Amino acid sequence: MASGTYRADVCVAGGGLIGLSVAWRAAALGLSVVVADPSPGSGATHAAAGMLAPVSEVTYTEEPLLRLGMASLARWPAFAAELSAESGMDVDHRSDGTLAVAFGADDVTALGELADFMDKLRLPVERLTGRECRRAEPMLAPSVRGGILAAGDAWVDPRRVVAALLAAAGRRGVTLVPARVTGVTTEGGAARGVRLEGGGTVHADHVVLAAGAWSGALEGLPPGVLPPVRPVKGQIMRLRGAPGFLGHCVRGVVHGSSAYLVPRGDGEVVLGASQEEMGFDTRVTAGGLYELLRDARELVPGITELEVVDTFAGLRPGTPDNLPVIGPTSLPGLMLATGHHRGGVLLAPLTAEHVAGELAGGRPEGDPPVAAICSPMRFAGRAAHPYP
Amino acid sequence: MASGTYRADVCVAGGGLIGLSVAWRAAALGLSVVVADPSPGSGATHAAAGMLAPVSEVTYTEEPLLRLGMASLARWPAFAAELSAESGMDVDHRSDGTLAVAFGADDVTALGELADFMDKLRLPVERLTGRECRRAEPMLAPSVRGGILAAGDAWVDPRRVVAALLAAAGRRGVTLVPARVTGVTTEGGAARGVRLEGGGTVHADHVVLAAGAWSGALEGLPPGVLPPVRPVKGQIMRLRGAPGFLGHCVRGVVHGSSAYLVPRGDGEVVLGASQEEMGFDTRVTAGGLYELLRDARELVPGITELEVVDTFAGLRPGTPDNLPVIGPTSLPGLMLATGHHRGGVLLAPLTAEHVAGELAGGRPEGDPPVAAICSPMRFAGRAAHPYP
Repeated sequence: MASGTYRADVCVAGGGLIGLSVAWRAAALGLSVVVADPSPGSGATHAAAGMLAPVSEVTYTEEPLLRLGMASLARWPAFAAELSAESGMDVDHRSDGTLAVAFGADDVTALGELADFMDKLRLPVERLTGRECRRAEPMLAPSVRGGILAAGDAWVDPRRVVAALLAAAGRRGVTLVPARVTGVTTEGGAARGVRLEGGGTVHADHVVLAAGAWSGALEGLPPGVLPPVRPVKGQIMRLRGAPGFLGHCVRGVVHGSSAYLVPRGDGEVVLGASQEEMGFDTRVTAGGLYELLRDARELVPGITELEVVDTFAGLRPGTPDNLPVIGPTSLPGLMLATGHHRGGVLLAPLTAEHVAGELAGGRPEGDPPVAAICSPMRFAGRAAHPYP
Repeated sequence: MASGTYRADVCVAGGGLIGLSVAWRAAALGLSVVVADPSPGSGATHAAAGMLAPVSEVTYTEEPLLRLGMASLARWPAFAAELSAESGMDVDHRSDGTLAVAFGADDVTALGELADFMDKLRLPVERLTGRECRRAEPMLAPSVRGGILAAGDAWVDPRRVVAALLAAAGRRGVTLVPARVTGVTTEGGAARGVRLEGGGTVHADHVVLAAGAWSGALEGLPPGVLPPVRPVKGQIMRLRGAPGFLGHCVRGVVHGSSAYLVPRGDGEVVLGASQEEMGFDTRVTAGGLYELLRDARELVPGITELEVVDTFAGLRPGTPDNLPVIGPTSLPGLMLATGHHRGGVLLAPLTAEHVAGELAGGRPEGDPPVAAICSPMRFAGRAAHPYP
């Protein structure tokens, strides 16, 4: 709750990984920034595994999304380095590669096609037999038939990234207001700030809506302005392993769904993640945990001995075309930075760079053309997803 | 931590369901009582499902244990009623019966034999076809082949029982000292109190050791006095269901191990429980949760939609002959009330009655002969289980 009145160049509604990244980069360009969020980093970010894997994370025929992912992946090393330097915090940025494994002949074929595609993109990839897979990752199930090693795949710990962003943004003078944004205030046909739960207000020249799955829920806006994001539920589980329990990120298709195990530097292993169309439901369910454990156990049987540290369910902001929604809306002063679905962590540096550039008055147009691919205008006239 | 000095007729070391029951009953007989425990009810009690089912809970060929269980079961209604009256708290004492189901022919046969045995004991039991099972419990899996309905089976919520015991014991003047007992003090060859972690002491004419799996761990005692209890790990999971999700306790043998679902009055469903010989390990593990979910799901597929509220691992105090250890030791002034393994909740009224009777100077000898069956002396000379 916040009943005060704040004034800034930019107000960011939503303090997840995207909103905080935008705030940090905008502040670095000299803008004064307020971020409003009752509980920063507690939504989709808290449930994210943090994979930076543009090829294996998306259906690799999705050309525009792949281009965005590759461009943002290229920005991650500098983004992480600068973030660590400014915050004094380590974000567990690892680039030990992903071992994607197959159990059946069909899956072996599919991985082979993915490897061919990665060759075309000049991404490092190695085709492995089952035995070679187990040599690379001794904890793998004996039934693994083959796999590919994507040596360039990297990942971060999103919870650490949020902590670092909060610290770095704070050092850049960003103000964090612990309140939910309930609506956008307009004046003369332009956004001029936001209303906060509890009665407070933020006056700002620019409002950036980065509220993830809840981005369709603001009051006070003309029809067609809010993005048609929908919540896509993901349940994850964190296990406590010894450092080195896994040497790579391990992925595989089990029971028809994609399962992964992401190791952290401290030995923690993240099991992910369900994809459920359940509306605004963040319950951790018996079935969700069962499937995570069943699938991860088939990939790496030895996880059964590991302690369960945490379970969590978050809501990814999905869009009708699976692409994020980034940039100005038809309402002057209102920008969007949402709809990143499974790619929020990967796409944060590119999103933040683009939005901060626009806020600072630039017309960032590079390769890929973020403004063209991600424009909120493509959904103009489409109704926002109903709020719960 | 407690650095004070306390004085009472009786000091109970351990505030689980057994220790608190003994304290409450001893206080009701006019004795002054101190219970020492840093965290009452947080051990095996916290992991217990609370079944009051002497026949199905034990291997039903174990005649002495069965007699104890039947005798204590008969005491539960009055125990619960008095406890509720004195504490003002409801312990969710339910007697809706257990539906034990079978998937294969062997299991059907085994359940038939159990039903025959229950007939002999004049316990109410009904033999059901698979269809009749599903009529009695619509959430049951379609693959259930048959089962038996033990209509007399009852259960309580052990966490509520602990809360009620704390309240009732408090009203009876029992003092709770939030410290771990580290050793027993002796004088002239008799127990005269306990030492507490943090430097405190309790002076008492009688010491009752009710420390569950940790009962073998006290300092200052002659060899052969401490009981040979060992920790038997049990992992449980609590789910949030709607009231009426299940009408009965549901049990079954799945993948060779016994699984059960125990419904509470508020709709909560407890899934239990593993039996693991893992020493003093209370980690909730991926494998433990996986097996709970897998087995419960085969009995009642609909649990997958329920929210996971809680997971927990506790340590049951096991003994070499699977019988509890209740009564005086070779050290005058020291009594034991431990080793209840899977039967602590069921056996609490009988244990408390017996121990309190002895403490009050009686020589309780009834049917069954608790003193003869459960005497700690049967293990005299046997080394206690090593402390972690």
